[in-house]
Amino acid sequence: MGGGHGLYQTLVAARLSAPESITAVVTVADDGGSSGRLRRELGIIPPGDLRMALAALASDDEEGSLWAQTLQHRFGGTGALAGHAVGNLLIAGLTGILGSEQAALDKVAELTGSHGRVLPMCNQPLEIEADVAGLDDDPRVIRPVRGQVAVATTPGTVRRVRLIPERPEACGAAVQAIEAADLVTLGPGSWFSSVIPHLLIPGIVDALNATGALKVVVLNLSAEPGETHGFSSERHIHMLSQHAPALRIDRILVDADTIPTAAERSYLERAAAGLGATIVYEDLRTEDGNGQRINKHDPSKLAAALTGLYREARGGGASD
Amino acid sequence: MGGGHGLYQTLVAARLSAPESITAVVTVADDGGSSGRLRRELGIIPPGDLRMALAALASDDEEGSLWAQTLQHRFGGTGALAGHAVGNLLIAGLTGILGSEQAALDKVAELTGSHGRVLPMCNQPLEIEADVAGLDDDPRVIRPVRGQVAVATTPGTVRRVRLIPERPEACGAAVQAIEAADLVTLGPGSWFSSVIPHLLIPGIVDALNATGALKVVVLNLSAEPGETHGFSSERHIHMLSQHAPALRIDRILVDADTIPTAAERSYLERAAAGLGATIVYEDLRTEDGNGQRINKHDPSKLAAALTGLYREARGGGASD
Repeated sequence: MGGGHGLYQTLVAARLSAPESITAVVTVADDGGSSGRLRRELGIIPPGDLRMALAALASDDEEGSLWAQTLQHRFGGTGALAGHAVGNLLIAGLTGILGSEQAALDKVAELTGSHGRVLPMCNQPLEIEADVAGLDDDPRVIRPVRGQVAVATTPGTVRRVRLIPERPEACGAAVQAIEAADLVTLGPGSWFSSVIPHLLIPGIVDALNATGALKVVVLNLSAEPGETHGFSSERHIHMLSQHAPALRIDRILVDADTIPTAAERSYLERAAAGLGATIVYEDLRTEDGNGQRINKHDPSKLAAALTGLYREARGGGASD
Repeated sequence: MGGGHGLYQTLVAARLSAPESITAVVTVADDGGSSGRLRRELGIIPPGDLRMALAALASDDEEGSLWAQTLQHRFGGTGALAGHAVGNLLIAGLTGILGSEQAALDKVAELTGSHGRVLPMCNQPLEIEADVAGLDDDPRVIRPVRGQVAVATTPGTVRRVRLIPERPEACGAAVQAIEAADLVTLGPGSWFSSVIPHLLIPGIVDALNATGALKVVVLNLSAEPGETHGFSSERHIHMLSQHAPALRIDRILVDADTIPTAAERSYLERAAAGLGATIVYEDLRTEDGNGQRINKHDPSKLAAALTGLYREARGGGASD
């Protein structure tokens, strides 16, 4: 579960773990770029995050790679098409023909020889609205900021987000996939626009609480400029319980480098306890050519960590 | 050889004749609609006529039909995408990834389970410029009109068209296909924008004169409003020899209803003789629900006529 580049990395990691099946459950609140233009113009679910998930799951053979590249290809130039991803247009076109975005996504998955299925978290386009502090001279003033792009780039501090419409219906297939899963991951990704939106859909939270799966939140490696600027890892976790008080999680996977001191670790563990979760520290960062750890999850490290957590939980009889 | 709706009908007819292989050689001078926008925006060969040929050749199975429909699907609404055909965008996107429009066309053909190959007549986008009379009060004044849309809709009378750039290089694969063919058809279609442009490429005319194929021009059922308004069938034929004096053709297939009187038929035969061709009259029109013959070739009648001509020519040892 997630959206954007964070979900892309998790799906690559999922493939490396070679599970029986993979299902991506994807946010549909994007209003920027190619996706935003398409949702406004055609009234469809914003396809961008769905398209990225399909690209992440595409087969590695020549055919799959070509189609993955084509899905991700963006038109250049300075005209009306500039910046549109071909995959977004293909999903939009197939949706027009097949009458359902899900049928379109499944068709594209067939084309790419996909390693899994891609589902929107909700079958209607959603908007994000945030309560943001720090936009006025008086720090106590909280202003609503609407739209994913506006929230992601606000110079203020996001206190809370909500979906419009509120409490939308979950995608039925997504609920089923969560309930039937062995392992569910949430994050990493833009916290307010790719991660928390899932937790604002009652049917998704219910499914997370009902599933027998091991539920793992993968924390971001760093606070993001814009929407979570200056947020500690602890605050990231608090944000989850604040937005979904009923939510229960099993593990929170944290990069060992990110939280170095014992004091910080204890804050983090306290926050995790609010979700019923324990913190697990692993080396998760990609190393660049010079051996420097950068701000990006390494899919093979993530795959190893997730597989380890799953084996331990199942083998040791731990958790739910 | 042709373009637009005329070529679409011929390709459907070709499929009904079940030949060993089918190759569509397609004009690339369109500057209108979705194609025109794409060629201006991305500098590619206008994909519209190529896309229609691919749709005509798509397999009839579920998969082929879905992709044919998707290629032809046009975005609605009132935004930047309105009117764009999905297939045009897909061809444009694949061209960006594969680096060649031909590779993109072949990839789409794979997708549709195509019954044949689709080739542009030339590997660069071309423009049409026409000398048009009747735009001024003085009927002797001839003005240049540039662009396929402008030529197709001129209220004047087109005297001659040329390509810009002039004498472009023919697509090598198209030349080979013509030379290796058993049967080549040219037309029906918009005479100045879909048919004659082929004859303005020296390599194409040379291939037509070198091939051992039976060469058949399929005449339009009616003069078109705009570019050939008021043109007789005879004048359509004269236009071919005027634009390609060296061109030799074997048969000119004319709807029996279109040219009813003996006098008209004799004019037509004289014009055909200028190309070395004989006229063949056949019932070629589609009948509507009430048995009325309408202005559209019936693919099965066209297939039967072409197969008959081919058998007769080969069986009787006639022609070239």
